[in-house]
Amino acid sequence: MLADTITRYQQRVDNQLAQIIDAQSITDPTLITAMKHGALIGGKRIRPFLVYAIGDMLNIPLEKLDSCAAAIECIHAYSLIHDDLPAMDDDALRRGQPTVHIAFDEATAILAGDALQALAFEIICQPIEGIAPSQNLAMVSALAKASGYSGMCGGQAMDLNATNKQIGLATLTQLHKLKTGALIRCAVQLPMIAAQISNEQQALLMEFADAIGLAFQVQDDVLDITSSTEELGKPQGSDCDSNKSTYPQLLGLSGAQQTAKRLIDDALSALTKLPYNSQLIAEFARYIIERRV
Amino acid sequence: MLADTITRYQQRVDNQLAQIIDAQSITDPTLITAMKHGALIGGKRIRPFLVYAIGDMLNIPLEKLDSCAAAIECIHAYSLIHDDLPAMDDDALRRGQPTVHIAFDEATAILAGDALQALAFEIICQPIEGIAPSQNLAMVSALAKASGYSGMCGGQAMDLNATNKQIGLATLTQLHKLKTGALIRCAVQLPMIAAQISNEQQALLMEFADAIGLAFQVQDDVLDITSSTEELGKPQGSDCDSNKSTYPQLLGLSGAQQTAKRLIDDALSALTKLPYNSQLIAEFARYIIERRV
Repeated sequence: MLADTITRYQQRVDNQLAQIIDAQSITDPTLITAMKHGALIGGKRIRPFLVYAIGDMLNIPLEKLDSCAAAIECIHAYSLIHDDLPAMDDDALRRGQPTVHIAFDEATAILAGDALQALAFEIICQPIEGIAPSQNLAMVSALAKASGYSGMCGGQAMDLNATNKQIGLATLTQLHKLKTGALIRCAVQLPMIAAQISNEQQALLMEFADAIGLAFQVQDDVLDITSSTEELGKPQGSDCDSNKSTYPQLLGLSGAQQTAKRLIDDALSALTKLPYNSQLIAEFARYIIERRV
Repeated sequence: MLADTITRYQQRVDNQLAQIIDAQSITDPTLITAMKHGALIGGKRIRPFLVYAIGDMLNIPLEKLDSCAAAIECIHAYSLIHDDLPAMDDDALRRGQPTVHIAFDEATAILAGDALQALAFEIICQPIEGIAPSQNLAMVSALAKASGYSGMCGGQAMDLNATNKQIGLATLTQLHKLKTGALIRCAVQLPMIAAQISNEQQALLMEFADAIGLAFQVQDDVLDITSSTEELGKPQGSDCDSNKSTYPQLLGLSGAQQTAKRLIDDALSALTKLPYNSQLIAEFARYIIERRV
């Protein structure tokens, strides 16, 4: 059931993104093609999945969530384009395809990322039937905070500064809470804003979001050691080689695995306190630590 | 009077930007310092000036315009940081100071630009007393469109593609309408959204904005030929040398000067049809073609 729903939501957001990009007037054919390459390069679409799945759990019709799902994926896509640049991670391949600066050039990759970030905000401020403008504004605010200095960009800067350096567990946790956690938290926040649930329920969902966001990263570090290069699609052990601090390095492999499991237990415990059918979301939380890639 | 008001509004937006950036929690000291360096490197603050001056003309209190002024300048500042990168214009100096990638490094400059764009949207979606959430949303939308593919980023991509190539007048005009015109238009739009004026008045102000935006660029091309290197702060004739198409190249020097003058006449003519005291704005329009730098 989970795998089918992941595929269904993945196709839904891909269709949205393709439609939105194709609807742009042709100002510069190179730039729009580069934006499309970056936005539609594939991937599990975890953030849109969370937007749709949490929204569905909270009884929000999916069509009211399309703009949130597309916008958050535009932010994620732009961040990957910029992360792959020579001055950052210098990656030539992503999901088996040439990265944007390889398929086009560096200047185009910088601009495609910039334009996708602007597009995210253009999409998320569109009026949604049955959603008040004040809720819509709260969505813009949540996305901007999650993307910027106090979120993803700040985490990426911490990550750059932590390379070739030994950092402690508190710093590593803070780094991941910002770098990947902030946008995952935002993916849970957006449908929550649409649903206008109680403060208590909001707090439980934020607990859930923070726990799965961090578990996702801990499991990534674990898989970097335990999976084969073929499974990962990148060299096995590449994080160790690039001398980045990881959870297994700080806690040992089994310590890291236990941490991931404990985080997912916390996430599941928050879910059980909510008066909704959270079966799919719970399955997704377990999948985070059971996945092999 | 104009010079004093430019200085006053410049200081007002600089204070706003400094306060906003200083209020961020210290996630990553390098990144926040780089953002501040890029946002407070100086400049005439033309876009915030227009936000305040047009807003004042439309009887909007300045404090209701602070977030618009700061947000639009964050977008402009981020675009300069990214334009200066080695893969783009490769500039080491801006306003006599090292550009962000020189003062810090390329990765930090990319991230500082990204974070300033997010900050622009975080600022502009803040509630403003007396401004309805629906107006606030319209401001977010205007800023996102002006910044992205159909605006500034699209124009910058056209500019990259036009280097070392002969382009016609229509393409050059379209390029500048997007690259610099879109954000100048937006600076006029934002206070207009706050003021809720009639469609007819909106159309006149947009005529004004489009005319001054283009005149600004034509005059820049003229000054590149007629001003000394010392006045310009960059090598005289640098646009010709880098083999970019310019208005004087396509229309002759006097043809370009006449075009700039005609555009400003159009802008002034639109202003006279408005029932507001447009003296300061008219003075600003004339300054665009009378300036030496």
